[in-house]
Amino acid sequence: MATKKLGKQTVCFSTPPVISSTYSIVGPKEGEGPLGKYFDLVLEDEFWGEKTWEKTESKIVKECISGCLGQEPVSNEDVDFLLSGDLLNQCVSSSFGIRERSIPYLGLFGACSTFVESLALGSMLIDGEMADTIIGSTSSHFCSAEKQFRFPLELGTQRPPTSQWTVTGAGAALLKAGGNGPKITHATIGKIVDMGIKDANNMGAAMAPAAIDTLYQHFQDTGRTPEYYDYIFTGDLGKIGKKIVKELIKTQGYNLDSNYEDCGCLIFDGETQDTHSGGSGCACCATTFCGYIYNQLKSQKLKKVLLCATGALMSPTTAQQQESILGIAHTISIEI
Amino acid sequence: MATKKLGKQTVCFSTPPVISSTYSIVGPKEGEGPLGKYFDLVLEDEFWGEKTWEKTESKIVKECISGCLGQEPVSNEDVDFLLSGDLLNQCVSSSFGIRERSIPYLGLFGACSTFVESLALGSMLIDGEMADTIIGSTSSHFCSAEKQFRFPLELGTQRPPTSQWTVTGAGAALLKAGGNGPKITHATIGKIVDMGIKDANNMGAAMAPAAIDTLYQHFQDTGRTPEYYDYIFTGDLGKIGKKIVKELIKTQGYNLDSNYEDCGCLIFDGETQDTHSGGSGCACCATTFCGYIYNQLKSQKLKKVLLCATGALMSPTTAQQQESILGIAHTISIEI
Repeated sequence: MATKKLGKQTVCFSTPPVISSTYSIVGPKEGEGPLGKYFDLVLEDEFWGEKTWEKTESKIVKECISGCLGQEPVSNEDVDFLLSGDLLNQCVSSSFGIRERSIPYLGLFGACSTFVESLALGSMLIDGEMADTIIGSTSSHFCSAEKQFRFPLELGTQRPPTSQWTVTGAGAALLKAGGNGPKITHATIGKIVDMGIKDANNMGAAMAPAAIDTLYQHFQDTGRTPEYYDYIFTGDLGKIGKKIVKELIKTQGYNLDSNYEDCGCLIFDGETQDTHSGGSGCACCATTFCGYIYNQLKSQKLKKVLLCATGALMSPTTAQQQESILGIAHTISIEI
Repeated sequence: MATKKLGKQTVCFSTPPVISSTYSIVGPKEGEGPLGKYFDLVLEDEFWGEKTWEKTESKIVKECISGCLGQEPVSNEDVDFLLSGDLLNQCVSSSFGIRERSIPYLGLFGACSTFVESLALGSMLIDGEMADTIIGSTSSHFCSAEKQFRFPLELGTQRPPTSQWTVTGAGAALLKAGGNGPKITHATIGKIVDMGIKDANNMGAAMAPAAIDTLYQHFQDTGRTPEYYDYIFTGDLGKIGKKIVKELIKTQGYNLDSNYEDCGCLIFDGETQDTHSGGSGCACCATTFCGYIYNQLKSQKLKKVLLCATGALMSPTTAQQQESILGIAHTISIEI
């Protein structure tokens, strides 16, 4: 049967869904960073009145979706599906964050690629006439992520230079079948890429090959080159992963020297904020998109954007069992 | 815009996708149960030559998908998307199980509702012309689940009568845009239902309200009654959850007394296998469907089936933080 697929991994939407509104909430450190003024809400502390970091993260998800719906004459009842996921075990910040909403919920897990996964799938559901209105969201929290994936914060463990700083925050986007705003024209769904990297303190290096694989496939499938886009953004590779992407994609015949940046390099000031290789976490791509990039699209400073979010598919258990860190990347093309 | 939605939560497919083949692998205990003869492969022990239960679970996923593809003249390259998820932290049994396949991967998390979530979403992607061929799969393993969610097995902790036994196994289904076989005609996507239940040893009670909510909505959206179906199956409510569903759905005007069963009650012999309230885990619904129910559909002993998988959205961390157990249920209607 004929499908809307171009090439191996890319779907080309016949009626590109519209990103009708977005909302972003970040923690204080992100608010002090270079993109601070673009976020809708900057928290004063990492707890926001809650007793645990996990409860804070759920509250951030809850309020972020409220904020996103609040930009539009849209209520819970108008939303066909909510697609969300996060880094916490069993994706609990998403499920507890949305438990009071009566919205049909499809839980996702794509690690830090989740935001783009939610928008890619959401676009497929809308363009396939399964839905009219969809919310995609994701979150992360520096403290809950460090506790779960690395060391208790109280230990004050020294961080190696390759490590990244998990962004505290959430981003939510409202997709609609029609209307005005930036449109998602293509989605390229990634494959798992396993390069055998095992250093959980060097996620950028582990995820970069997945970003290269998906970007390469996007260009192959669409027949486009990087120059087609005003800007190409990856999700949270940080300085090291970004350098790898720029170098290695040249061996595949594409050049990203002039119009490529990584959200993990944008969200923190590497000189003054002590974040080593840069930002990471599901919220890195989500807040940078919902805050900064969406603003640039709406104001038409950027008209053609490729957003590629990468995820590291691993757990502390697999790391302890000497497994490598699997990478995946999904990408969407957004135009206004 | 007009969509394929009926009512609030149900999608009615215009060209119902076909479940072209299935495959199921189970552990020895499941093989000794009442459905033993229906499974494609029964393991001799819980390790299958691996050193850890997590690695075993990944191997089960890997071989289950191979088995599913092996039933058909279909190879990795022909599969547009693979949709999968599981109970392990960061869904690692899925991602490590499929890492060698070059198939675009969409990771899901719906706890024990994942199997139906994967078939529902897969059907939406096919009916929306985003794809032609999709695999949906999920897994669980008694030992990895007990270790992660409850107590180390070595402790020999006594299990309360309300507890359930996580099924060791995996199920995979191949969905295609056309061809012969049982067809998925409708999908009803559930909302999160929070009844404030906090007993992690009584998952059936925690998830039953979500099953009732989604079944009720399915009947409302489609205008059907339970009598329309030859049989209605829930995923892993066990004896206690099943009893709650049968009783409470009567208060909403529907009667399930004559044609309703729960996979958790079918897969083990409650009298002799010491599984207390019954089977649970992602693989409970997946293996019962891919083994037993699919067989009944293919042989036309059952022609109209409603499959409703329930998930408990919680983690040990949320339980320790006194949060309730959230429930969700997704359902698909399958006809031949």
